[in-house]
Amino acid sequence: MSEFFSDCLNGLVPYVPGEQPRDKKYIKLNTNESPFAPSPKVIEAIDKGQVSDLRLYSDPTADMLVGAIADYYSVDKDNVVTSNGSDEILAFIFRAFCGKSKGIVFPNVTYGFYKVFAQLFNIDYREIPLKKDFSIDVSDYENISDNVIIANPNAQTGVFLSVENVENLIKQNPERIVVVDEAYVDFGGQTVIPLVKKYKNLIVVQTFSKSRSLAGARVGFCVCDKALADDIKTVKFSFNPYNLNRLSIVAATEAIKDKDYFVKTTSQIIENREFTEKELDKLGFETVSSTANFLLTKPKGISAKELYLALKQKGVLVRYFDNSLISDYVRITVGSREQMEILIQKTKEVLTGGQNA
Amino acid sequence: MSEFFSDCLNGLVPYVPGEQPRDKKYIKLNTNESPFAPSPKVIEAIDKGQVSDLRLYSDPTADMLVGAIADYYSVDKDNVVTSNGSDEILAFIFRAFCGKSKGIVFPNVTYGFYKVFAQLFNIDYREIPLKKDFSIDVSDYENISDNVIIANPNAQTGVFLSVENVENLIKQNPERIVVVDEAYVDFGGQTVIPLVKKYKNLIVVQTFSKSRSLAGARVGFCVCDKALADDIKTVKFSFNPYNLNRLSIVAATEAIKDKDYFVKTTSQIIENREFTEKELDKLGFETVSSTANFLLTKPKGISAKELYLALKQKGVLVRYFDNSLISDYVRITVGSREQMEILIQKTKEVLTGGQNA
Repeated sequence: MSEFFSDCLNGLVPYVPGEQPRDKKYIKLNTNESPFAPSPKVIEAIDKGQVSDLRLYSDPTADMLVGAIADYYSVDKDNVVTSNGSDEILAFIFRAFCGKSKGIVFPNVTYGFYKVFAQLFNIDYREIPLKKDFSIDVSDYENISDNVIIANPNAQTGVFLSVENVENLIKQNPERIVVVDEAYVDFGGQTVIPLVKKYKNLIVVQTFSKSRSLAGARVGFCVCDKALADDIKTVKFSFNPYNLNRLSIVAATEAIKDKDYFVKTTSQIIENREFTEKELDKLGFETVSSTANFLLTKPKGISAKELYLALKQKGVLVRYFDNSLISDYVRITVGSREQMEILIQKTKEVLTGGQNA
Repeated sequence: MSEFFSDCLNGLVPYVPGEQPRDKKYIKLNTNESPFAPSPKVIEAIDKGQVSDLRLYSDPTADMLVGAIADYYSVDKDNVVTSNGSDEILAFIFRAFCGKSKGIVFPNVTYGFYKVFAQLFNIDYREIPLKKDFSIDVSDYENISDNVIIANPNAQTGVFLSVENVENLIKQNPERIVVVDEAYVDFGGQTVIPLVKKYKNLIVVQTFSKSRSLAGARVGFCVCDKALADDIKTVKFSFNPYNLNRLSIVAATEAIKDKDYFVKTTSQIIENREFTEKELDKLGFETVSSTANFLLTKPKGISAKELYLALKQKGVLVRYFDNSLISDYVRITVGSREQMEILIQKTKEVLTGGQNA
């Protein structure tokens, strides 16, 4: 820290992205990326002409993409704001609606970034404990006047809160905002975007990084009432008007229009998740029931940290969180069937201590 | 504004990007884009394989690009931080080094975004008047303890402050940071990046949007002492770790490595600027001497606003600023020779009131 660093950022601990070691080629099951390439229509659309046009600024309103998202979810364009990954739209939301008079609360196991945003913008935050089974008890939020953010399905656990329960959370207090981060909703969950028409205090956040196979394009968005969207746009245009680059606008637009490919690839992930869960069951692992593209599982006969390290040694990266609430678990991204078979095979090798199980 | 908008953002007035009307095809001389496509090496590098890899997250450290920038400017990788356009790195810098105890000052005619960043982060700011000829008088900054940001060459005017004067500004007070925004430095100015080794309170900001023909890729960066760079990284990793997408990292890396193309295209802009200035002289316009890829010029026989509107009518977009200090001027981006010839031709038509001059 330099002598110049702002006092009000004292103690700011940045988010730590999943590791990306480059010492050898790994099977990456640690950052919840898709094992599938983006839609062939994306690959076709990014041609040399598009690259040549990079000399020109992108459309700061990303109108083409906003229109495609609005069409997909049957909302108005006025309800949609796009961003450089969903992390950015989350940052805009924290900046726009929290402050001196309004803090924010979130579950004690969730996306680790919420805490960081709160620190970055000097916002009071509080963590609400999950139940023992990692589910959210909506009644815990009943008397809270601060804004609320949840990930649904929840990050790290994959546990899904029913639409009915989310609606209860929104209804509890119309004076506070409820942000529902649906980064993982497309693998068996159900979006609450339709509720945006009914509730003025709901913001739904989504990303193209998981179910649309575009993690490297950095595209996220939110859907909410027009008044909230306008406020978020005020922050966006005060932070980075041209926040989406030209190629990512094209890529994301093509991706959301290609429903067939989306259905095919997300169904495959769901199938592979079920396969993996069964295989982990056979090993005696306790796996949290997930509707996301990952599984949180408690190994048997070895600690989670040891399993993580041993798998890394064998070229398979999974995620281990140094958080006492889930330190008995590893989080495994659901990849291709082949990747999952290798994961199971390598896990068996680790458990038996041999090179081949 | 919704009822939920944070109190501390009351009065926040977002930045207004240059207009991008789509009612017809314009010759765009209003946002200082390059008339040239990116380097052929950029166009070659963004191939179908790169697009396929968009399923994977980008490298949050953008190591390849950081290395190429460090090589180009003969600094260490530790001195470089990259961003989603230079607007983003400016936002990070405002967040990292200003706050309750440290405000910021800048000239009263400069990049309009500095004021917006200050408002967004609730930072005290003050504008220091330029001299009558639009130059910066460094002695005006002598007794200022707040941080300083200048654009050099200055935005809107194109006026360049000599390296000697910038060094004086930095030396005046080692307890404050001096940010030098060199967005336009490659068109005849001189960078102060070499001074980073000498001064711990200097941050130099640059962009790939102008001289590297990559406005639509959104790539910016700063070069500074490692301690400052680490602080900026702390903010970046607390805001958006994966802030650069995969394709822009590739594009910018290829762009900065292709020195020949850079020299060819920037020299062409300088030549076209000289041509345009001479032609505007012939019309009796008063043009501010510029080392940027634009010209600020005071028309003769017509008001600036009228000229802007009349040129727009004729399919040529220039920029008019509703700022009393420069409201007698229009700002014209220097494009290709052909574009400049059309600009002059259309301007003559406007002045004579006819369809053909």
